[in-house]
Amino acid sequence: MTNAVVLLSGGLDSATTLAIARSEGYQCYSLSVDYGQRHRAELAAAARIARAHGVIEQRVVKLDLTAFGGSALTDINIAVPVAGIKEGIPVTYVPARNTILLSLALAWAETLDAQHIFFGANAVDYSGYPDCRPEFMQAFEALANLATKTAAGGAKLTLHTPLINLSKAEIIRRGMALGMDYALTVSCYQADDEGRACGQCDSCCLRRAGFDVAGVLDPAEYRNS
Amino acid sequence: MTNAVVLLSGGLDSATTLAIARSEGYQCYSLSVDYGQRHRAELAAAARIARAHGVIEQRVVKLDLTAFGGSALTDINIAVPVAGIKEGIPVTYVPARNTILLSLALAWAETLDAQHIFFGANAVDYSGYPDCRPEFMQAFEALANLATKTAAGGAKLTLHTPLINLSKAEIIRRGMALGMDYALTVSCYQADDEGRACGQCDSCCLRRAGFDVAGVLDPAEYRNS
Repeated sequence: MTNAVVLLSGGLDSATTLAIARSEGYQCYSLSVDYGQRHRAELAAAARIARAHGVIEQRVVKLDLTAFGGSALTDINIAVPVAGIKEGIPVTYVPARNTILLSLALAWAETLDAQHIFFGANAVDYSGYPDCRPEFMQAFEALANLATKTAAGGAKLTLHTPLINLSKAEIIRRGMALGMDYALTVSCYQADDEGRACGQCDSCCLRRAGFDVAGVLDPAEYRNS
Repeated sequence: MTNAVVLLSGGLDSATTLAIARSEGYQCYSLSVDYGQRHRAELAAAARIARAHGVIEQRVVKLDLTAFGGSALTDINIAVPVAGIKEGIPVTYVPARNTILLSLALAWAETLDAQHIFFGANAVDYSGYPDCRPEFMQAFEALANLATKTAAGGAKLTLHTPLINLSKAEIIRRGMALGMDYALTVSCYQADDEGRACGQCDSCCLRRAGFDVAGVLDPAEYRNS
């Protein structure tokens, strides 16, 4: 079996990405990053999802991005917006986060001798995030293929982003077809410690709309409902 | 004045890079990463160098790369080679380290609104490290210019690698001309807590040979001499 590193935040997208990687026959190593995110409940969710989906090892790396701040997710002085999705790049954008997450996945992939990284980035619903664009993913793959000893030895690293062009509803349908239990996932940017969602932030709005369009009941627990 | 983030390990190369950035008129923010490196004395060196060279702020970010291991610098079970420099990529190569360091610099640069990153990578003496090659640096700059909100807004990020094609002796002469006190720096991969060098690892060998060729006395303190 072929090894793959799957970035697993604990949200809906990364959980679906793990299910896809498993369905394609990869032996999966899932990586979560404890970067000081406000919604720490997603880390517990990642552990649950990893257990339920047969990953070989779920690893959590600590990296304190609150040292840089600059985002509602890493600076408690910046509020998470709850007034609906606006034009432009939202304040929940974390500076260089996806570059950092992918770099860490690359490091683990190299030590595991894995030539595949799965990343649940999505360019449709989150078009506001610059590091969710397909051209960013291509640039990272090009970098990765110059960065490592493995690459210097001639092995090709592939960055898989199976959700990149799917709508949230399509992602949910795909995951349901693969047996994903979305009750395990936490999407909310300000979930409480038990993983209960606010129902109002951008991430909750996108999730709820996705389940609506997919015609599936969202199993998430919402604080205000 | 223009802001720049300078990756400052505490070694000879990054110290010289800081001196170059300052001489070019940049207002410098230096970043060190406490990644679990064996030679932790370099972090104290970085703080000394930052103080001596007028950086606005020296920041240390913790990230435990021993979680991945795969290098003599991050796994205590892998010995640092002391038998002279060999062909090929040495075991002191840390998987994806430069990709990770640059990603963190990019994050800080974005929160500082800095469009310049200085990195003391060198392709001559360390040609064994894949992530010290000029093509890697070009690929990272291309990635950075897709990765951030700043880039999406049209600002251009420049990655400066002023040492990339210099020999160690040339680097030392350049630093001396800029008033760098190399007694502040720690190069050794297994420096003790006081920063005393082993004199035998690859990094010590390259440093000593560089000072020899430059015709300058190496002010480092060596344990065995």
